[in-house]
Amino acid sequence: MYKFINNGSVTSAKGFSAAGIFCGIKKKKKDLAIIYSSEPCTAAGTFTLNKVKAAPLLISQEIIKSGSMINAVLVNSGNANACTGEEGFKNAELMQKECAAELSVKPQNVLISSTGVIGQQMPMENLLKGINSIKPFMSNDGGHDAAEAIMTTDTKPKSFAVNVEIGNDSFTIGAICKGSGMIMPNMATMLGFITTDAKIEKSLLQKILFNAVDVSFNKISVDGETSTNDMVTIMANGLSGVEINNNEIINEFQKALNSVCIEMAKSIISDGEGATKLITINVTGANTKKDADLVGKSLSNSPLLKTAMYGEDANWGRIMSSAGMSGAEFSPEKVTIKFDDHAVLLPDYKIVVDESIASKILAKKELNININLNGGQFSSTWWTCDMTEDYIKINAHYRT
Amino acid sequence: MYKFINNGSVTSAKGFSAAGIFCGIKKKKKDLAIIYSSEPCTAAGTFTLNKVKAAPLLISQEIIKSGSMINAVLVNSGNANACTGEEGFKNAELMQKECAAELSVKPQNVLISSTGVIGQQMPMENLLKGINSIKPFMSNDGGHDAAEAIMTTDTKPKSFAVNVEIGNDSFTIGAICKGSGMIMPNMATMLGFITTDAKIEKSLLQKILFNAVDVSFNKISVDGETSTNDMVTIMANGLSGVEINNNEIINEFQKALNSVCIEMAKSIISDGEGATKLITINVTGANTKKDADLVGKSLSNSPLLKTAMYGEDANWGRIMSSAGMSGAEFSPEKVTIKFDDHAVLLPDYKIVVDESIASKILAKKELNININLNGGQFSSTWWTCDMTEDYIKINAHYRT
Repeated sequence: MYKFINNGSVTSAKGFSAAGIFCGIKKKKKDLAIIYSSEPCTAAGTFTLNKVKAAPLLISQEIIKSGSMINAVLVNSGNANACTGEEGFKNAELMQKECAAELSVKPQNVLISSTGVIGQQMPMENLLKGINSIKPFMSNDGGHDAAEAIMTTDTKPKSFAVNVEIGNDSFTIGAICKGSGMIMPNMATMLGFITTDAKIEKSLLQKILFNAVDVSFNKISVDGETSTNDMVTIMANGLSGVEINNNEIINEFQKALNSVCIEMAKSIISDGEGATKLITINVTGANTKKDADLVGKSLSNSPLLKTAMYGEDANWGRIMSSAGMSGAEFSPEKVTIKFDDHAVLLPDYKIVVDESIASKILAKKELNININLNGGQFSSTWWTCDMTEDYIKINAHYRT
Repeated sequence: MYKFINNGSVTSAKGFSAAGIFCGIKKKKKDLAIIYSSEPCTAAGTFTLNKVKAAPLLISQEIIKSGSMINAVLVNSGNANACTGEEGFKNAELMQKECAAELSVKPQNVLISSTGVIGQQMPMENLLKGINSIKPFMSNDGGHDAAEAIMTTDTKPKSFAVNVEIGNDSFTIGAICKGSGMIMPNMATMLGFITTDAKIEKSLLQKILFNAVDVSFNKISVDGETSTNDMVTIMANGLSGVEINNNEIINEFQKALNSVCIEMAKSIISDGEGATKLITINVTGANTKKDADLVGKSLSNSPLLKTAMYGEDANWGRIMSSAGMSGAEFSPEKVTIKFDDHAVLLPDYKIVVDESIASKILAKKELNININLNGGQFSSTWWTCDMTEDYIKINAHYRT
């Protein structure tokens, strides 16, 4: 049994502190965050599949692979340290080393992450000054500051936490994330940092994280099509005393983590650049899992569908066309399409849309597109947002 | 040797007449076009790979497959006759039959095509009235009217023709097309109708058409990801007396047809919904043809790149990131990127952009993005447009 903690964040779990400060990478806003556990943590992570990988991401990926215990994650916004060559790599190493020295741990105990503009060298003087001054700001309720400091085009910080009761015991999972849920969210940098005071062995933690990311971040994004800096990490310090070591409790942990990750993913989409609507796409009746995902991915990436949603236009033809070009195997004439519970298309192309009912549903801030291929037993849930003029404005002049 | 004919169109080749009229499928604008040859034509066609295929497209595809000689193509805009079930199929058959009767030919001598809103039944009474009254409008300079009548969100009609000299003889290739070059142009209906007075055997014509489409329409679109109604056809009536029957002359015909198709493809992109710029993407130095195409496709479909082009922002990081997520194999540190002739990135991430030179290039209406992967010998050219607020406006309220 898990429940969300009101105002929870990455510092909700025992033993975690955090801070978010301004150090001068951005012009004015907070741009440096740290998440810290005095107790060393087992850790796991998932990383971008883009061929072009940012220097800090490569370093953190190696550390996760090595199995090293982790004490901290240091994250800057405003500069991605991607496509910056050898100098960028040295800067990332220095960023890690300086942070480790401040915390009196080894470099391999510190994960690092960057997000922002690609192809510009990090302003190291400002960053190092920030690293040398962030420690006094770390506190048990610093999660929200940290959430603010990792933002780029996000309009609001994103923090979540759940408490999980296991008999008389309980543990907590907390998280912050950033991301700007775009047309093809896979191209935006998406960062997620999760903490827990449960005790959990590293390889099991990695497996559970993979599962959680697959039903959440991978359903607003696409494997193999991610940005240069995308990463999601989790640190477990064991301070709750609850050990995740049998099937029942693993299951509870998985469910709670899935839920935190899904809320993060949805918060990214809701805060999509210029977005005014959160759209849940439920694909059912597919012959294979892959077909369900192909249709969900195609619909959630369709600019034609996303602009129609913005225009509150019940143009279900764009849903059919997008499903048809997805590569999924299905029989078009069997398809059912609903907006929320209102059927607009039944098998044999029976068009049953009531435009006035459809208009009311499409006017909502949150709505469901339900497409049933009426073929097999497989399903998939995806999230997307509408696409508006503001998306263009935000992205046309990102660097200026 | 070919050259473009000033003001040329689908009626430039000998023996072709055409008309474009208003029959009441749209509210006011021309919506019915016919292209006619009294002499029966060999014909070839390429058709959408979308799983969801419009009724008129299925009918035309069967006729091309059958090898039947063709006298006419009848095209309506305003209604796609897609996702319209059995009734839609019967309507498409009737459309073809009525047209054949008017022209005193058999139904299998008439290709049909539709474009417009998906999922609404064709207003048959108006369409049939149009078919019964279009004949008197057919003329040898009716190509431009026909080009106008096949438009949907296009802002201008699109007509081209080339004259090809072979010794003392010559033949002509003429064409009209429509398409609204969007973010993912594959999702818009793209139609192209080509005529020639050369004489050419059907299977050879089909092969040459495939080749031409591959370097033109398929470089603004993507195999397997097309709309419900996409088709390109070519009719050859032989009236020039020139027969396309040896390697040299086949080569001339191929070059001329490629050129017409590339001009059509570029005109679609230039007239892209809300577009203000035509961007040519030259990918070179790829290890395989597939890698070159993957990078070209990814860049030409990238909303982040397209919005940056609109903002005239020399954000080459988005080019790297898009190439990196394309699935192509390459070494990021070897990449060179240029805007026109101005290098912005050299190997080993040497950033050499001069922002003031870049700004001048990016302010142009037509520009090139040249990305050299510096791996192998393969290359690929793609075309795309920038992405603007007007794209959103046009698509948010398409049906209303």
